[in-house]
Amino acid sequence: MSEIGFIGVGIMGMPMARHLVAAGHRVHVWSRSKPAEALSAAGFEPCVSARAVAERAEVIITMVSDTPDVAQVLFGPGGVAEGLRPGSLVIDMSSISPVATREFAARIEALGCDYLDAPVSGGDVGARAATLTIMVGGRQTAFERARPLFEKLGRSITLIGDAGAGQTAKVANQIIVALNVAAVSEALVFAAKAGVDPARVRQALLGGFAASRVLELHGEKMLTRSFDPGFRIELHLKDLGVALDSARALQMPLPHTAVVAQLMNAAQAQGLGSQDNSALVQLIEQLANQTLRAS
Amino acid sequence: MSEIGFIGVGIMGMPMARHLVAAGHRVHVWSRSKPAEALSAAGFEPCVSARAVAERAEVIITMVSDTPDVAQVLFGPGGVAEGLRPGSLVIDMSSISPVATREFAARIEALGCDYLDAPVSGGDVGARAATLTIMVGGRQTAFERARPLFEKLGRSITLIGDAGAGQTAKVANQIIVALNVAAVSEALVFAAKAGVDPARVRQALLGGFAASRVLELHGEKMLTRSFDPGFRIELHLKDLGVALDSARALQMPLPHTAVVAQLMNAAQAQGLGSQDNSALVQLIEQLANQTLRAS
Repeated sequence: MSEIGFIGVGIMGMPMARHLVAAGHRVHVWSRSKPAEALSAAGFEPCVSARAVAERAEVIITMVSDTPDVAQVLFGPGGVAEGLRPGSLVIDMSSISPVATREFAARIEALGCDYLDAPVSGGDVGARAATLTIMVGGRQTAFERARPLFEKLGRSITLIGDAGAGQTAKVANQIIVALNVAAVSEALVFAAKAGVDPARVRQALLGGFAASRVLELHGEKMLTRSFDPGFRIELHLKDLGVALDSARALQMPLPHTAVVAQLMNAAQAQGLGSQDNSALVQLIEQLANQTLRAS
Repeated sequence: MSEIGFIGVGIMGMPMARHLVAAGHRVHVWSRSKPAEALSAAGFEPCVSARAVAERAEVIITMVSDTPDVAQVLFGPGGVAEGLRPGSLVIDMSSISPVATREFAARIEALGCDYLDAPVSGGDVGARAATLTIMVGGRQTAFERARPLFEKLGRSITLIGDAGAGQTAKVANQIIVALNVAAVSEALVFAAKAGVDPARVRQALLGGFAASRVLELHGEKMLTRSFDPGFRIELHLKDLGVALDSARALQMPLPHTAVVAQLMNAAQAQGLGSQDNSALVQLIEQLANQTLRAS
């Protein structure tokens, strides 16, 4: 049993932290929004601040929304950095900027601690089922120390490289998924607009070079109009923002990613932000004045 | 044994026509460029015109480059239409406009004949190995008549819908493949630019929602710098032109496809036209001033 800190018990973090409790760890939690009684009832040790979490735990996991949230929780007033003891390990499992992550890692390591970035894919379903894919950046020794915890949370666990490499892999993942969704959306709506049954087109294409998990899963959702998330457009849009901001900082253009980000932005403007990312097809349908029901 | 006509014995058409000879058919061929002796040596019956092919054969297959080539071969002076007998079947296996295809089908059917559009994917490797994917549009009865021939040429053979549906499916296929190549290019170059090994990123992503045949096959080609075609950028660019022209005729915007077409256009301007479509990554590398070799 170890003393674990967990900050960010939201839709993803709550089931993850509970898996750690179930594995026999004492889990110290600070929450901006949830009252201490609710945290106790969930099996956690409530703390008054992120600093208090860091004072009590050897390993501190953060699972929050965006880059500024991680900065605030780690380095803001009453934050983790104020309470860290040398030798502690900070693991950020949020999906945030790889560029900022390197700076965070350097600042935590300067305090005599270890830092891993370990964003996940698999969504809240994967968090509840402990089947997340975990992409890790940082030192091998820190990775080995964290591995038993990761194994309680996910199934495919890979050390990609140094600090920031986990976040970089997550960005790459989100770029590919977004563009594959865009590709399937344009292809199927084109078929429908041409008067051809998009379901038969999808079926024929699944056997060839166009085959993908997205054609399989998201394509099916588009055809059956099953747009409950899954992974919400507003979150994918946030991740594409991370991609474009990071790429700009690295001096790299991402022309296709920029287009899909703009169209997801438009989808959000149409009120589709809380729907599954496969609902991007509805924006392409609007542009074409054509739904996927073949004429 | 049937009397088959074949027009367009190029890189794709030559091995396809020879499979039909090997299956015991008499194959009548007209070629703009190949001398009669060469055609005889290959086992074909040489003809002096497309019209002569149509006069001798019950089934006439065309496998040429682009929409205007099909129009010329079918309806130009000395073309197929002049020689067709009622009851003959015309099968266009070229990859051309689905919109123009509907007009061609109507004109052939007005002559008392059948028409199928049956574009393929699988490239010259698939043509030689008789493992093509064949996407067919037209009447069920014509499809049943052609099926024994298709089975000598390919493996996955699907009647997608009415006239033009095969070409529509092919367009959908080319849209998805192009955008999946673009997605993998941006994602892997981003990783390299961030100092992360793109091979490890690809490996980690193959297990999740980003998985695709393109990430598997084209991603591997990008990493090993194996840009021999395969399927050439200049041909993919031609197909994206068909996609964009058809979409315009149908009044449908294809914003992502338009971007990848422009970048393939730029790749061609850089002298990459005769390389495999996975060489699109070299254009993204140029834009980023970063090769896939991780720093």
